[in-house]
Amino acid sequence: MKILTYPSLEDIIAAHKRIEPFIHHTPVLTSSAIDAIAGCKIFFKCENFQKVGAFKARGAANAVSKLNDEKKKAGVATHSSGNHAAALARAAKIAGIPAYIVMPDTAPEIKKKAVKGYGGIIIECKPTQADREATLERVVGETGAIFIPPYDHMDVIEGQATCALELLDKITDLDIIMAPVGGGGLLSGTALTAHYINPGLQVIAGEPEGADDAYQSFTAKKLMPMIRPNTIADGLLTSLGKINFQIIIEHVAEIITVDESQIIAAMRLIMERMKIIIEPSCAVPLAALLAHKHRFSGKNVGIILSGGNVDLSKLPF
Amino acid sequence: MKILTYPSLEDIIAAHKRIEPFIHHTPVLTSSAIDAIAGCKIFFKCENFQKVGAFKARGAANAVSKLNDEKKKAGVATHSSGNHAAALARAAKIAGIPAYIVMPDTAPEIKKKAVKGYGGIIIECKPTQADREATLERVVGETGAIFIPPYDHMDVIEGQATCALELLDKITDLDIIMAPVGGGGLLSGTALTAHYINPGLQVIAGEPEGADDAYQSFTAKKLMPMIRPNTIADGLLTSLGKINFQIIIEHVAEIITVDESQIIAAMRLIMERMKIIIEPSCAVPLAALLAHKHRFSGKNVGIILSGGNVDLSKLPF
Repeated sequence: MKILTYPSLEDIIAAHKRIEPFIHHTPVLTSSAIDAIAGCKIFFKCENFQKVGAFKARGAANAVSKLNDEKKKAGVATHSSGNHAAALARAAKIAGIPAYIVMPDTAPEIKKKAVKGYGGIIIECKPTQADREATLERVVGETGAIFIPPYDHMDVIEGQATCALELLDKITDLDIIMAPVGGGGLLSGTALTAHYINPGLQVIAGEPEGADDAYQSFTAKKLMPMIRPNTIADGLLTSLGKINFQIIIEHVAEIITVDESQIIAAMRLIMERMKIIIEPSCAVPLAALLAHKHRFSGKNVGIILSGGNVDLSKLPF
Repeated sequence: MKILTYPSLEDIIAAHKRIEPFIHHTPVLTSSAIDAIAGCKIFFKCENFQKVGAFKARGAANAVSKLNDEKKKAGVATHSSGNHAAALARAAKIAGIPAYIVMPDTAPEIKKKAVKGYGGIIIECKPTQADREATLERVVGETGAIFIPPYDHMDVIEGQATCALELLDKITDLDIIMAPVGGGGLLSGTALTAHYINPGLQVIAGEPEGADDAYQSFTAKKLMPMIRPNTIADGLLTSLGKINFQIIIEHVAEIITVDESQIIAAMRLIMERMKIIIEPSCAVPLAALLAHKHRFSGKNVGIILSGGNVDLSKLPF
């Protein structure tokens, strides 16, 4: 088995310096109303205000910036119908190189528009994992572009880790830090940073019951793929990545699952009380906290709000 | 005719000091995406993040804080079905005195809940102006409470003026400052502060066509009441106040009216691009700006986002 070398704290700090010109240093917000309901003090790190509306801007910017000029030349490629697609297109645009984005032909027009808005070149495929991968392989073969995966990649994880770096730099007395888990890019990056900065800091993830492969994998200590995920938290439908799983097994304390009504209630609570727009995936950690209040009672809890890309004409309430 | 003495800059600064412990110093946000669409640089002062979700927290806190102990004793009263009701209930709660809020029996349950949440005592009336006023008079007669009107009152205007004070303190090179106009509390306060700090700074208001009494009054130079207002901007349905009108005539450069579709489009633009929740009234100044881009081209424009209390299950898109 190949031994993985994770990004060190120095690597993460260097990544932050590297991407700083291209990302927002997002604010940390609090809500006395939500604290009163939750029975603890919550610090929300607002990546919904991040460039492209999600933390994904960090990982993509880092991965593209780390390519040398030779590798950069032919551009970058990925398959994604979500925030990583827009993030990679944007990072490529800043670097002045092409981005080839393989997207299912069923992807919403608004997602395609976001990618095109950043100058990304969309290659449509059938909405199956097999055709996504085959199409990507063909595109990479034809163009020589470098594949930047959405989460299962050291440079992407290193980039996502910079989010917790900013949060822990600002709020120095957190007891617990929470993030949602889908592919695991954000969670694994968060776990690394937390571990380096304060090994006593507990990292707890929230995951939808309808897409609980991380919970299943974590419990079985064996990576289990997600079959037929079904949740409103559309950022968390993907299966946990391999590297991500390794880091999560080592540095995450607990994964808590929540049902759809808990996610929707937490989403509404954040939007109504904090007057900010979040996508459903963001609400999963708060839903997990509210379902297990005793576990968090009196603690200082950091929650990463991962993104704000939601169709306002289709809110679940 | 009685000569009105408006709050001076020193009065407004003192008001800010007075209410500072009870309000949020709200952030100023920018959006490169909206700037690109608008062709100017916009600084949004986010009173949607204010306590009670609206700038009204300022005026109410100031008016209550200025009452002497003798006057405070019997409490305060108002008639309002909107943000002023919650703001006054909250200010009274902080002062430890009762707040009597006359509300139409048709007021939405969520508005009543907000008032009750701050310990306000609700007295229901019929949904007519006559019954609102008669009921308020009765309540004041019975309790001895001091009537704090929602906008047509020097201390309220002085309180609302502190919002522009914070904005102009932070962004020192504005060319134009914009606010919506309903009763005129926010606009008149904003106009006073702008005038004192930089007489060259233009104050421009946005108003819905369906509730354009301020525009009509401004044009006729004579206060005209609003008959049957009809707009989605529910914070702007009220008729312009007398003191407010005087200040507006003296210190506002222009009132621009916009139709409902322009308001809704601007509301959606802010929510989608900035990931913040605003009530429709907030969107009126940006709608006015976008309808007259040439007027604002290349300028630095401050826009006060007045509040964020909107029913998320009834968004107009």
